[in-house]
Amino acid sequence: MGRAVLAAAIEDRMATTRAVELIARKRDGGALTGAEIAALVDGYVRGRVPDYQMAAFAMAVVWRGMDDGETAALLAAMQHSGDVLSWRDLDRPTADKHSTGGVGDKISLPLAPAVAACGVAVPMISGRGLGHTGGTLDKLESIPGMNVRLDLDAFRRITRDVGTCLIGQTDRICPADRKLYALRDVTATIESIPLIVASILSKKLAEGVDSLVLDVKVGQGAFMKTRDSALALARAMVGAAHTAGRRATAMLTAMDRPTGSHIGNALEIVETIAVLKGGGPADTRQLVVRQGGEMLRLAGVVSDAAAGELAIGAALDDGRALGVFSRLVEAQGGDPRVCDDPTAVLPAAPITAPVLADRGGIVAAIDALAVGLAAVRLGAGRDRAEDAVDPAVGFVFSRRIGDRVEAGEPIAWVHGRDPGRTDRAIAEVRAACRVGDAVDPTALPQFLDVVY
Amino acid sequence: MGRAVLAAAIEDRMATTRAVELIARKRDGGALTGAEIAALVDGYVRGRVPDYQMAAFAMAVVWRGMDDGETAALLAAMQHSGDVLSWRDLDRPTADKHSTGGVGDKISLPLAPAVAACGVAVPMISGRGLGHTGGTLDKLESIPGMNVRLDLDAFRRITRDVGTCLIGQTDRICPADRKLYALRDVTATIESIPLIVASILSKKLAEGVDSLVLDVKVGQGAFMKTRDSALALARAMVGAAHTAGRRATAMLTAMDRPTGSHIGNALEIVETIAVLKGGGPADTRQLVVRQGGEMLRLAGVVSDAAAGELAIGAALDDGRALGVFSRLVEAQGGDPRVCDDPTAVLPAAPITAPVLADRGGIVAAIDALAVGLAAVRLGAGRDRAEDAVDPAVGFVFSRRIGDRVEAGEPIAWVHGRDPGRTDRAIAEVRAACRVGDAVDPTALPQFLDVVY
Repeated sequence: MGRAVLAAAIEDRMATTRAVELIARKRDGGALTGAEIAALVDGYVRGRVPDYQMAAFAMAVVWRGMDDGETAALLAAMQHSGDVLSWRDLDRPTADKHSTGGVGDKISLPLAPAVAACGVAVPMISGRGLGHTGGTLDKLESIPGMNVRLDLDAFRRITRDVGTCLIGQTDRICPADRKLYALRDVTATIESIPLIVASILSKKLAEGVDSLVLDVKVGQGAFMKTRDSALALARAMVGAAHTAGRRATAMLTAMDRPTGSHIGNALEIVETIAVLKGGGPADTRQLVVRQGGEMLRLAGVVSDAAAGELAIGAALDDGRALGVFSRLVEAQGGDPRVCDDPTAVLPAAPITAPVLADRGGIVAAIDALAVGLAAVRLGAGRDRAEDAVDPAVGFVFSRRIGDRVEAGEPIAWVHGRDPGRTDRAIAEVRAACRVGDAVDPTALPQFLDVVY
Repeated sequence: MGRAVLAAAIEDRMATTRAVELIARKRDGGALTGAEIAALVDGYVRGRVPDYQMAAFAMAVVWRGMDDGETAALLAAMQHSGDVLSWRDLDRPTADKHSTGGVGDKISLPLAPAVAACGVAVPMISGRGLGHTGGTLDKLESIPGMNVRLDLDAFRRITRDVGTCLIGQTDRICPADRKLYALRDVTATIESIPLIVASILSKKLAEGVDSLVLDVKVGQGAFMKTRDSALALARAMVGAAHTAGRRATAMLTAMDRPTGSHIGNALEIVETIAVLKGGGPADTRQLVVRQGGEMLRLAGVVSDAAAGELAIGAALDDGRALGVFSRLVEAQGGDPRVCDDPTAVLPAAPITAPVLADRGGIVAAIDALAVGLAAVRLGAGRDRAEDAVDPAVGFVFSRRIGDRVEAGEPIAWVHGRDPGRTDRAIAEVRAACRVGDAVDPTALPQFLDVVY
């Protein structure tokens, strides 16, 4: 063995031995120091700590949790595992929003340009859909020509020029998170608040924004099924963001039913443009206004949230937000005519078929999880990260919770590509909708809680 | 991709997806079916379930445990992952003993020939030393020429001809255990009763013996530090052995101090031969007599344990046990003259130096863990599986717990190879021994409990 090879072998052996001690301490309920967590993450990214040790460690963290200091150290180690962007040369403050994901959750798409239109830059690194939850990048890519795989130079330039830019994760940002998240996905170690906090915030902190609004979805269609678990995650995220020196607010919002009327990639762009024109479903607009208003308040460009909400509402109503979106689409290679005539530009499904109510009454509930799973089976989403999505297919709800519907009237429309899958989706959407005499008393309010 | 490659890729993907579900269920405190455990173990041995999934599963088992049915299924799956021996063609019953390991624990070496001399065959697959605990194979290999890496045909032949044979684990017996144990060792997932039970018993069950005595060591020098934890392990092992249709007894015995007077590989052969000649330290002989007697009782060749103990004592005293040991050594390629003049045949350390008592009184305690760790540092043991051991070095205690010693008299002798390590060992052994006015009141009795 050459000297360098020998030295590397010794370091590997030390890393392995040390990692066992750290796993054992966490297994026994102890805490790791910041330096130990940093060494573990660094060793993992460099390949000195193998996947199997990190998998055992992750399961021990699911079991034993992490205290605030450990969570902060994990977050910092992951944040600094790759490039960390700075926007100090920008003439505006920066803010971003993260949602824990859900069905029909296209809020980022109208939100980013609306906030940018109000003088706060929104450099947003987004994700793809997985399982029953959709992804911002998949939706954007349904616009012909739209490129979300930009390098960081283009990301900086477009953010500076347009006020916002939406791209996918790159290898240069938080490589530790990419590697650890992929491992957690196949080792049943996703469900851990400190690991979730570190995963979400490390990317946002590396993105370099000053302020952050966190939308923690609650309900069967969300990752957090209960208000209590969502509140715990929200508090952990806000606390960790504050520890890291960022301004942050978390909002708990409903995901027992889908958000808005449109579900599916191109269809959600249609709804986005409606909202950017001052219209669209009330819940989608309200989420944009509330979360955008809070971003403006955190960024310090308005004195309170009410003023921020007014500003966002005005940007939606007077076309400024739509103008930013149009420039964003053009800057990222997409066809900006999508803003004028979305249906002419966006891919359309060959089949449009109604889901008819089998009784009259009030729409009592629409099961977000069932709708999301039906969308995946229709082709709008993916079960595994490497699957492709069909941009055209999805659902448009013509009735929402609380609306009156007569027997035989359409509650929703299925946009499908092949007759068999369309028929199955019709049955699944019908089963996901319940018509009764009143709104289900267990239905969640749109806004459940706010954590500052 | 060719069809076979494609089929294998699909199977891999299914195994991965399925494994995540099983890990998640265990993580959430649920139980796996026997078929699920069998599929997981089979997938792991075949490489379809990767190390990182098994590591996460193992940590989830450390956390959540396994019920009796799961433990039995894991045991069976591991037992049947390789060859399973049968001794039905033998004219005698079979029995074996397993110890959870300790310092100076050479009991198997006189025990196997003594039991064989009483008409019960002892086909024994043993382990090597790791950490502060010694290993039967390392001790045997200090006899010049002794070969413990025999194939299963030789193992069968020597067991039939001599009545006993001692070999190391082979690739053909319990490959699942070899792979899983190596993984657990580097992922801090050793400490789980169901995993320990399955690991120990799978090898013994694959070995094919009818009866099994389990020596569960208790104390600082043992894997189980407390009587309660040792009792839990003992009960789990006896229960699982019974479920698998074997006769089994577990004895809880003391490992707060070393067993016998000699610690170190060749030195323990010296003590073994003393015991096989009817002498040796009282505790070593008593362990051989009690455990051998119980093996004879379980094997049905005596009516009760007392008769078994008498038979073992007689075999030690009249030279029959030594005769079997001599034939065993010869059959496995070793120099049988070791039985007549051990010190002439065995490797000797160049330095022999006393550990002098710094005060007079009664030997109150000898810390087994400290002695074991000192032996490793002296070269008698190994920190890592791939390290070599020095057969000659070790300690011989001239005083035992309860013995009187005068200031300046030797409590022990260090057999060392180099002066620096010898001096350090002298200091460490002195620190491990406490001389006082009486035996430490917390000293454990030699036999703490028996589980039938």
